Amino acid sequence: MDHIAEIENARSSQSLTRRPTVAALEDILFTLFPVLDHGFVRVVDYMGDDAAVVQAARVSYGRGTRKITEDNGLIRYLMRHRHSTPFEMCELKLDVKLPIFVARQWVRHRTASINEISARYSILDREFYIPEPEHLAAQAVVNRQGRGGVLGEDEARQVRALLVADASQCFDHYDWMLNEGHADPERDGLARELARMNLTLNTFTRMYWKTDLHNLFGFLSLRADPHAQFEIRAYADVMLDITRKWVPASTEAFNEYRLGAFTLSSSMVSALAKYVGTGCKVSRADTGLSARDWAELNKAFPIGTD
Amino acid sequence: MDHIAEIENARSSQSLTRRPTVAALEDILFTLFPVLDHGFVRVVDYMGDDAAVVQAARVSYGRGTRKITEDNGLIRYLMRHRHSTPFEMCELKLDVKLPIFVARQWVRHRTASINEISARYSILDREFYIPEPEHLAAQAVVNRQGRGGVLGEDEARQVRALLVADASQCFDHYDWMLNEGHADPERDGLARELARMNLTLNTFTRMYWKTDLHNLFGFLSLRADPHAQFEIRAYADVMLDITRKWVPASTEAFNEYRLGAFTLSSSMVSALAKYVGTGCKVSRADTGLSARDWAELNKAFPIGTD
Amino acid sequence: MDHIAEIENARSSQSLTRRPTVAALEDILFTLFPVLDHGFVRVVDYMGDDAAVVQAARVSYGRGTRKITEDNGLIRYLMRHRHSTPFEMCELKLDVKLPIFVARQWVRHRTASINEISARYSILDREFYIPEPEHLAAQAVVNRQGRGGVLGEDEARQVRALLVADASQCFDHYDWMLNEGHADPERDGLARELARMNLTLNTFTRMYWKTDLHNLFGFLSLRADPHAQFEIRAYADVMLDITRKWVPASTEAFNEYRLGAFTLSSSMVSALAKYVGTGCKVSRADTGLSARDWAELNKAFPIGTD
Amino acid sequence: MDHIAEIENARSSQSLTRRPTVAALEDILFTLFPVLDHGFVRVVDYMGDDAAVVQAARVSYGRGTRKITEDNGLIRYLMRHRHSTPFEMCELKLDVKLPIFVARQWVRHRTASINEISARYSILDREFYIPEPEHLAAQAVVNRQGRGGVLGEDEARQVRALLVADASQCFDHYDWMLNEGHADPERDGLARELARMNLTLNTFTRMYWKTDLHNLFGFLSLRADPHAQFEIRAYADVMLDITRKWVPASTEAFNEYRLGAFTLSSSMVSALAKYVGTGCKVSRADTGLSARDWAELNKAFPIGTD
Repeated sequence: MDHIAEIENARSSQSLTRRPTVAALEDILFTLFPVLDHGFVRVVDYMGDDAAVVQAARVSYGRGTRKITEDNGLIRYLMRHRHSTPFEMCELKLDVKLPIFVARQWVRHRTASINEISARYSILDREFYIPEPEHLAAQAVVNRQGRGGVLGEDEARQVRALLVADASQCFDHYDWMLNEGHADPERDGLARELARMNLTLNTFTRMYWKTDLHNLFGFLSLRADPHAQFEIRAYADVMLDITRKWVPASTEAFNEYRLGAFTLSSSMVSALAKYVGTGCKVSRADTGLSARDWAELNKAFPIGTD
Repeated sequence: MDHIAEIENARSSQSLTRRPTVAALEDILFTLFPVLDHGFVRVVDYMGDDAAVVQAARVSYGRGTRKITEDNGLIRYLMRHRHSTPFEMCELKLDVKLPIFVARQWVRHRTASINEISARYSILDREFYIPEPEHLAAQAVVNRQGRGGVLGEDEARQVRALLVADASQCFDHYDWMLNEGHADPERDGLARELARMNLTLNTFTRMYWKTDLHNLFGFLSLRADPHAQFEIRAYADVMLDITRKWVPASTEAFNEYRLGAFTLSSSMVSALAKYVGTGCKVSRADTGLSARDWAELNKAFPIGTD
Repeated sequence: MDHIAEIENARSSQSLTRRPTVAALEDILFTLFPVLDHGFVRVVDYMGDDAAVVQAARVSYGRGTRKITEDNGLIRYLMRHRHSTPFEMCELKLDVKLPIFVARQWVRHRTASINEISARYSILDREFYIPEPEHLAAQAVVNRQGRGGVLGEDEARQVRALLVADASQCFDHYDWMLNEGHADPERDGLARELARMNLTLNTFTRMYWKTDLHNLFGFLSLRADPHAQFEIRAYADVMLDITRKWVPASTEAFNEYRLGAFTLSSSMVSALAKYVGTGCKVSRADTGLSARDWAELNKAFPIGTD
Repeated sequence: MDHIAEIENARSSQSLTRRPTVAALEDILFTLFPVLDHGFVRVVDYMGDDAAVVQAARVSYGRGTRKITEDNGLIRYLMRHRHSTPFEMCELKLDVKLPIFVARQWVRHRTASINEISARYSILDREFYIPEPEHLAAQAVVNRQGRGGVLGEDEARQVRALLVADASQCFDHYDWMLNEGHADPERDGLARELARMNLTLNTFTRMYWKTDLHNLFGFLSLRADPHAQFEIRAYADVMLDITRKWVPASTEAFNEYRLGAFTLSSSMVSALAKYVGTGCKVSRADTGLSARDWAELNKAFPIGTD
C-alpha cells in the first residue's frame, strides 16, 4: 500500500526536460508489470530513443537526409550488420522482483549495473515462487536441457506441496535464527549474513538493473528465446513488450534480424545453394552436415531426400 | 577417488614450453586447497609472471636497465599509481567449490570468465555448508553489516541442527522430485531446472573462474579485507597465498599499496598536515570532518584533542 | 551557423517527463563549452541524479530515513568505500570535439560507449590544434613524463610555425588525394579510408561519448589530475564543472575522497603513526620507505629528520 | 639485430610445465610474422587449448564420454549457439606493430588488454606505412564505405610520393622539435607529449595486445571479413592463421558457424521457406524484403522471379 502510494506519487509529478522523451514509455513509467506469482518488472528510468541510435550512427557513418523511412532503414542496417555502439547510446533502468534461481541466470549477463537487495543488511520477505501446475514439467528426454511434458495432476500436487512446505519451513527457521527484535530474549539471534543460507532458491529477491539497448537485446535474444527456461522467459517477454514501446523501430529490427533470424552455417549455405541451383533434393551425405545440423536445416527448409 | 586420480594424472604429465613458467606455482598446480567444510580452490592454469607485468609496462613507458631491483621498483610504481593494464597481462584460472550464497557474492565481480555447473543439466551433490560453532555469530550492533559476538553453545547447537535438518530435507525432496532413473516408476520426475529451486543457499556449487591479475587484486582488495564476510574471506585468503607464490613482487606491492594502505580524504590530509605543522593536537570542529571520518582518522593517528 | 541553429532548436523544445530531472544541467544541455582552439564539450543527454545513487544504494543496503543530510552522508560513505554500482546508475552522454592524439588517450577508458566520426565515410574538417605559446613546454627533466619549463619566445614561434605548416600541407594533400567531386577530372581520387593516413595527429575529430558516473569519476580521477597532459586535462576540467552541476553531492564526495585524497602505503602508515605516537621526527632508514615514497610523504607531511 | 637476438634468445630457452601446451603454437612462439611494409604480429604468450574449451563447457553442461569426435561436436555446438564463456577460457597475447590509423580501428574492440608504446615517454621510430600501388584504390561508388578500383599508374605514383614526402617531413620536424640530446644547444626542445602531434597517421606504433578466444573471434569476424579495410584485414588474416595453429577445432567451428555463415532475417526465412515449399520462384513484392535484403538473399540463393 505504502509501495503503491510511492509509485502513484512518483507517477504524478512531472517536470520539463530538454532531453528526448518517449510518450509511450512515460505512460508506463514506474508501473508494476506482474511476472510469476510474486514478481514484477517496472521501468524506473530511461535515456534515449530510436532517434538517439540514428544520431550516434550518423556521427560515425556520416549524415544524409533525415526522413523517417531512412532512419528506420539505417536502424535495420545497423542491426543486420551487428553494429553495437549506436544501440549502446540508449539506457534502460528496471526494478525487478524475481526468484533467486532466476537472478542467478540473470547476472550471467555481465555488461549491466546491478544493485540487488543484500540479505547481509536486510531481511528478505516471506515470498517464494511456486510454479503453477501447468508449468511443472518433466525432464526433457531428447536433449538433456529443458522440459518435457507436463506432470500428471497427482505428481504436480505432491511437488507443489513439497515446495511450499520446504520453503515455508526454511523461512520460518530463518526467521527464528534471526530472532529479530530479540523476540526470544534468551537468544542473541544469528547474523543476517549467515541466516540467509537457510533460504531456498525460490525465495524472491529484488534488484535495480540497468543496461544499454545493445546489451538488452543480447539479453532478450537469449532469454526471450524458446530454449530459455520458462521462468526467466516470463520476464524477458514483458521486457520485450516494454522495449517495443520505448524504441519501436529498433525492436522491429531486432525481431527481424536477431530474434526471428536463422543462421546458416557455411555447409548449410552450400547445401541450400545446391538445392536452389539444381532444383533437386539433396542427400545429407553430399553436404558434410552433422546429423544435428541436417535436422535443423530440414526443419526450416525441407530440402533433404530423406 | 576418481577425482584424486584425475588430479594426480594431470600433475604427473609435463611438457616443454617456451612460455614463462613459475616454479612455485607449477608445484601446486591442480592441488586442492580445502576451504570451509566441503569447498576448495585449485589452480588449473595461469599465464604470465612478474616479468610479464614489467615487460608490458616497458612497452608503454619505455625501457631502461633491467636489474631485479628496478623491476620491483617499477611494479611498485605501477601499483602505487593504480596503473591497470600491465597487471592485466597475467591470467589465473581456478577451479572453485563453494556454497551458493558465496557464489552469489563472487559473481558481482563482473570482469571475469565463469563456467559454473548448471543445475539445469547436472544434479548437484548432497553437500551443504554448516558453519563451525565458532563462526556462528550474532548480528553486529554497531553497524548493520557483519557479525558481532559468537553465539552461546546452546544457541549454536540449535542453529546448526536446523541448518543440517533443513538442507537435508530440502535435498531429499529435490532428489525425490527428480526421481532420477525413474526410481519410482509411477512418476515422471520433475525437470532439473525446476527441482533445483528447492535447494537451500548453503548447497555447494562449483565453477571455473578465470580473471587477470588486475581484477584478481580488485577481488582480493574487497574480499581479503576484514569487512568481508568470513566465508568468502576464507577463499580470498587462500587465493592471496596462491597469488604470492605466482607473482611475489606484484603481491608485495599490492599488500603495501592497496591491502595495507590507508586513504586520507582531502579533509583528513588538512587535519593531519595541521597537526604535523604545529605539533599541536587538533579539535574535530576545526577540521570539518564527519564523526565517522574523525573516528577513523584518530584510530590510525591519534591527533585529536578528545 | 547551421550548427548553432540546430543547438538553439534542440534547446528550445521541452517535453514533460516523469523521470528525475536536474535543473542546473537542463540549463546547459546542448550548450557548447569551448576547449582548446577548436574543440568543445557539450552534454547531449543524461540519466539520473544524486538521488538515483541513493535510491540504488538503499535497495542494496536497506532503507532508513530520507533527510538530505543522510543522503549526502550515504553518498560520502559509498565514495569513501569505493562502492561502484550505485554510481553506475547515472549516465552522461557528451558530444566532444578534440585532437586525434587526445582521442587516443581518451579511448583507453574502455568502459564507455563511443561513436566517433569515421574518416572511412566522412571527410574531416580542416582544423588542427596549435598550442598557445604558453603551453609549449620543454620535456621535463626530473621524470621522463610530462613537461618542464615553457619554451622561449623564438623557439615557440618556430615550433608553432612548423605545426601550422605541416598540418596545413598534409591536409591540402589529403584534400588533393581525395579529389572530391572530381575537382580534377583526370584523377579517380583516393579512397577516404586511405587518404586519411596523411593527416597529422593534431587534426580534430569528434565523438559521442557516453559513460556512467562511476566510470566518469574514474576518467576524471586520472585526467583532471595535475599529472595528466594539459590538453586532455582541459577537457576533464570542463567535464568536472559539468558533473558538479549534474550531481553536486556525488562530485563533492569525489573531490573529498578521490581527487583530493592521499593514499598512504602500509609503510607510510607505520612511519606516520610512529611520528604521531612519539612526537619525534623520523629517519627514513627506520621506515623502509623508498626514496620516492619518502619524498612524497614528506612533501605532504614533513615528518623526516632531513 | 638486437631485437632478433632477443627473439632467438627467448625461443631457445624452454621449461617444463604442467599446463596444457600446443606444439604447433610453441613452434612459432616469438616469431615475427611480417604485415604491411614495416609491421608484424607475433605471439608472446598463450593460455589454454581446444581441450580447455571443452573442459570449461563440461563443468557447466555436464560430463559425458570424452572421445575427440565428441569434443569437436561440443565445440561446434557451443559456437553454433554463441556460447561465449567456454571460449573465454583461452587467452592469447600478441606483440603487434601497426600504423596508427589501424591501431585506432583496433582499439574499438574494448574487451582486451593493451599496452601501447607511449609517445609521451618514448620517441617513435621513423617508419611509415606507404601502400603498395596495387592497394591504392579509389573511393567505392556503390556504397560510401570501402574501396573501388585501383588507381592508375600515374595517380598512384603521385599519391605515394606525397605520402612519403609528407610523413618524412613531419617526422623530420618532430625530430627537430624534440631536439633530443640538445643537438641544437640553443633550443630547449619540445616535450615529447606535444611534439608527437606533428606525426602523420601512417606512422607505426607498437603494442602488446591480449584477449580471450571469444573476443578474438569477435575481432576476426569483423576484421577478417571482406568488408574490413585491407590494412587491418592483413593483420586479421595472419591472426586467423595463428589461431588455427593454436585451437584448430575451435577455429574450424568459427569458420563454419561465424565467418562463413549467412544469417537469414525473419523475412528471408519466410521467402526461402516459401520457395522450398512450392518449388516456385518468388517475387520480391510478396516477401516484404527491402531492396538491399532482397539483393543480398538472391546473390546467395537466386530464388527471385527477376
